[in-house]
Amino acid sequence: MALIVHKYGGTSMGSIERIRNVAKRVAKWHKSGHQLIVVLSAMSGETNRLLSLVREISTQPNPRDLDMITSTGEQVSVGLLSIALQEEGVDAVGYAGWQISVKTNSAFTKARIKKIDDKQVLIDLNVGKVVIITGFQGVDSNGRVTTLGRGGSDTSAVAIAAALRANECLIYTDVDGVYTTDPRIVKEARRLNQITFEEMLEMASLGSKVLQIRSVEFAGKYRVKTRVLSSLIDPMIPLDDEMRSGTLITFEENNKMERAIISGIAFQRDEARIAIIGVPDKPSVACQILGLLADANIDVDMIIQNTSIEGKTDLTFTVSRSDYGHVMNILACHAQEHIKAQKVLGDPNMSKVSIIGIGMRSHAEIASTIFRTLLEEGINIEMVSTSEIKISVLINEKFMESAVRLLHKVFKLEQS
Amino acid sequence: MALIVHKYGGTSMGSIERIRNVAKRVAKWHKSGHQLIVVLSAMSGETNRLLSLVREISTQPNPRDLDMITSTGEQVSVGLLSIALQEEGVDAVGYAGWQISVKTNSAFTKARIKKIDDKQVLIDLNVGKVVIITGFQGVDSNGRVTTLGRGGSDTSAVAIAAALRANECLIYTDVDGVYTTDPRIVKEARRLNQITFEEMLEMASLGSKVLQIRSVEFAGKYRVKTRVLSSLIDPMIPLDDEMRSGTLITFEENNKMERAIISGIAFQRDEARIAIIGVPDKPSVACQILGLLADANIDVDMIIQNTSIEGKTDLTFTVSRSDYGHVMNILACHAQEHIKAQKVLGDPNMSKVSIIGIGMRSHAEIASTIFRTLLEEGINIEMVSTSEIKISVLINEKFMESAVRLLHKVFKLEQS
Repeated sequence: MALIVHKYGGTSMGSIERIRNVAKRVAKWHKSGHQLIVVLSAMSGETNRLLSLVREISTQPNPRDLDMITSTGEQVSVGLLSIALQEEGVDAVGYAGWQISVKTNSAFTKARIKKIDDKQVLIDLNVGKVVIITGFQGVDSNGRVTTLGRGGSDTSAVAIAAALRANECLIYTDVDGVYTTDPRIVKEARRLNQITFEEMLEMASLGSKVLQIRSVEFAGKYRVKTRVLSSLIDPMIPLDDEMRSGTLITFEENNKMERAIISGIAFQRDEARIAIIGVPDKPSVACQILGLLADANIDVDMIIQNTSIEGKTDLTFTVSRSDYGHVMNILACHAQEHIKAQKVLGDPNMSKVSIIGIGMRSHAEIASTIFRTLLEEGINIEMVSTSEIKISVLINEKFMESAVRLLHKVFKLEQS
Repeated sequence: MALIVHKYGGTSMGSIERIRNVAKRVAKWHKSGHQLIVVLSAMSGETNRLLSLVREISTQPNPRDLDMITSTGEQVSVGLLSIALQEEGVDAVGYAGWQISVKTNSAFTKARIKKIDDKQVLIDLNVGKVVIITGFQGVDSNGRVTTLGRGGSDTSAVAIAAALRANECLIYTDVDGVYTTDPRIVKEARRLNQITFEEMLEMASLGSKVLQIRSVEFAGKYRVKTRVLSSLIDPMIPLDDEMRSGTLITFEENNKMERAIISGIAFQRDEARIAIIGVPDKPSVACQILGLLADANIDVDMIIQNTSIEGKTDLTFTVSRSDYGHVMNILACHAQEHIKAQKVLGDPNMSKVSIIGIGMRSHAEIASTIFRTLLEEGINIEMVSTSEIKISVLINEKFMESAVRLLHKVFKLEQS
């Protein structure tokens, strides 16, 4: 007997028929002798429906009120699944985040989990009940409902699995796992049976939106064995088959020998590059420029500073394309008086392609393979950034898809 | 400066436009220097939408899950009004029943309020905030969400007004007050400026569904000055005009001299009468019969037992028409072995007309006026029951409307 956490997203809970399927799946696990905790999102469309009501009233609603409103969707899901499980003959009990309680800080609409009380959950599990908990939400120290931000239900599930020391956390979603790259771009893309937590973190942060990145951080921090799998497959398939499906996020590196060097290729289509040419090479300059952008809530991604020549240097960085105009305005306002740059160059039509793999650590030739492959195809690399398990290149957007296809082929990612 | 409780029902909160009007009205009161607590129902249609989701899953849902689901509607209302008030420049703070907290027993879907904590509400009011609270719901001693049953928001409002010792509780609804009778039947029906709590209790329990009856009981028990008025009139009318509109439920009888003898005529269309003829006249018999019906959750209304003749008696009572078939079945099953009645007679086409007035206490001639009026019109009175402030007659349904019109005219209720 194991303690298992299931998490079902909005699509998986998107209709009464699907809720019945979730109930059947949970009942199957429960009847196999496992203890089950189920974490739920709101039915798909519900959060948007609530937000559109709010938008009709105000363009700048109080985040505390917003959380009071949007947190209701998950509460309805929990009640409905509890009823559906009882129809399947399974004793179930549902809780909202404040009832458990899932304690968070008071950062409404983007709260962080601080502590999860396991007392009542353990009591219920020990008498054989399935425990259902709202994802996405908690309660602050003043007893106000908070939400964790979009996709927060993944984080709730992993955090609850960590707090209860669950054997495994299964994230049921509308894809059947993590792929070597986006199958819409490379039709040979292959589902990974497993991926390390560090690789998953890079994949998630680079736009493979299978899991919310904070949930992956949580899984890594608390070493929660987490599996991404599809809620759309028949709920009645044998348990063993289900436990082999999807993609498992692992922490063990002892079987490194068997690992592929590269796990996958992620990409971000909508990037923009900005180069500030000929600024005085003083430590304060980069700091000042990045400070201006931070004040405007603009996230900077890749940053490169060239070697100084005659006391002048160039600072190049990337931002999301949607921030491009805003950044160029800020720089124009400050260029002459504060930054004292010779000129500011920008290109909003950039994309980032990232090759990710834990095996890369001991394989120095990866970078040169990437550069040579792109070069031979006439694709100019505008910027490069590397980490231990990732190499990212910035290229013109028009080459992005072909670059992803080429690299997927060169690294033989279609072969397991 | 007074402490005022406003309550808005589902129709009053039925659209974004109407929510804006509620915000304007509350803002007007607040800016006049009053302290305001606002109690809200779910937007009209919302509770039904949630219940229909539940019905698709189960015909016998767990009441605890049901309350978790249906309580979300009011929470959304509270969040939306809080945002709308802030748009009006009013500082507002919203709470769900469990946050205040409104403590109830654990009778899910029909919970009773036990205690309301006023601490946080007083803190908020004293710093000038408008406090918004979900109606219809509370929390039990295990921290589970409970609901008070349909129309429970009226009870929430009056209970909160009682707990906070509010100066007045204004129930905004889609009618503009309590009428001498239903204006759809008697077009001369007149709005009452005031009505005593006892009269209101009779009116409410007899089917004038302006207020939930438990809210009237609460108003009576805690002497909460309660006014029923329309949420549809212009939110910007002067405060004094608004405070003179609607119907005030009073507790003072010192101005009895000025009172009309009769306040109004209530009726219940869908009644059924059952007569059990020739049962042994032992105290246990009525008890046994009524016990059978109580076990089946059937409410019995009027009850008459005739004088015994030769050790036999007749027991006649009324039930709601929808229970008629059920009651006749129960009696058929038990008639021979337990009840030992000579026969059971039933008539499902009955209606009850009730004349209500606190002034009736000292006017014995009312009953004879009623009987004579109906007799002269050829309307047979099947049963009569009386209380200090009410005379009810059971008549054939086909005469009900004409009886109400006749009595409204005879007692000159169209004149103030």
